[in-house]
Amino acid sequence: MELNETEISSKQIFSGRIVDLSVRTVELPNGETATREIVKHQPAAGVIAINDQKQMLLVKQWREPIKAVTLEIPAGLIDETDVSPLDAMKRELNEEGGYKAEYWEEVSKFYSSVGFSDELMYLFYCDTLTKVQDKRPLDEDEFLEAEWYSLADLKKLLAEGKIVDAKTVLAIIFWENMLLTGDKD
Amino acid sequence: MELNETEISSKQIFSGRIVDLSVRTVELPNGETATREIVKHQPAAGVIAINDQKQMLLVKQWREPIKAVTLEIPAGLIDETDVSPLDAMKRELNEEGGYKAEYWEEVSKFYSSVGFSDELMYLFYCDTLTKVQDKRPLDEDEFLEAEWYSLADLKKLLAEGKIVDAKTVLAIIFWENMLLTGDKD
Repeated sequence: MELNETEISSKQIFSGRIVDLSVRTVELPNGETATREIVKHQPAAGVIAINDQKQMLLVKQWREPIKAVTLEIPAGLIDETDVSPLDAMKRELNEEGGYKAEYWEEVSKFYSSVGFSDELMYLFYCDTLTKVQDKRPLDEDEFLEAEWYSLADLKKLLAEGKIVDAKTVLAIIFWENMLLTGDKD
Repeated sequence: MELNETEISSKQIFSGRIVDLSVRTVELPNGETATREIVKHQPAAGVIAINDQKQMLLVKQWREPIKAVTLEIPAGLIDETDVSPLDAMKRELNEEGGYKAEYWEEVSKFYSSVGFSDELMYLFYCDTLTKVQDKRPLDEDEFLEAEWYSLADLKKLLAEGKIVDAKTVLAIIFWENMLLTGDKD
């Protein structure tokens, strides 16, 4: 079956600091037309950062879209000055946690919500963490606290519905999977 | 540390069929102000649907935000007529796959991208699937194909970067963990 849609026209509604919004008219596979509301967003990177006590680093921060404090893996936008997604992630781990790591790998790469947005997230894993001497400051509008959690704690928080951020749920399940399959010890 | 932000004002930029966009001015914990771009989106539901051959149901569809055909778990928006997220999910499984299921559980609940959006996703698991006699039609602007994949196939597709939708990556890793821990056989 033909599934592709073809863009006929696009109207920019808003161009902001974080998101751009446009409404596109597309031709459907059956020749009819439809509109698609599309939010453009910079790519981002997040990390499963594990210390020597087998704990994962999470940050607490206010999230205005849901008016709540969340627990999330360290993450941030990849900007034009970053050489690579990994480069951006190393900066964020320094800024948000005050750590650097020797061992890194890319775990996954996915679109956060592909129905309406093009936000791409790179998910990394790192361990062999050490405190940096030269911690970078947070962004001016960024306030957060870093905390460490064991897998048992995280599974409990998940079961209690206290972790509600998609990439963080994914990070925990990936880490458990690494331990279950013996990919990490 | 105080982390909460306080809304000072909010300006609606766009109100569409799928998303609403507003720019909010907030007071930061240090008394300064900042703006937050916020995309409101209806809640959604997705499902890990497993058949008797231990295969997961995925649907292929065009996603205009990334101009590509994706492989995703069956999912859809929860609308005002739905009694519950599970009710919405049962409808989508019928529409997108032509199936119904006896056994259901809620696996997780998370915000897709909490930095800019309030989209909440309910993730379900079901098995004991049977074909429905009265398959509901797809939405008028919806074109998709349903396919079945074994866990081995899915792990291969993940490794090859051919599954790029966050909820689907999460669904696969959740399912593998259920099998590894003996929660499902």
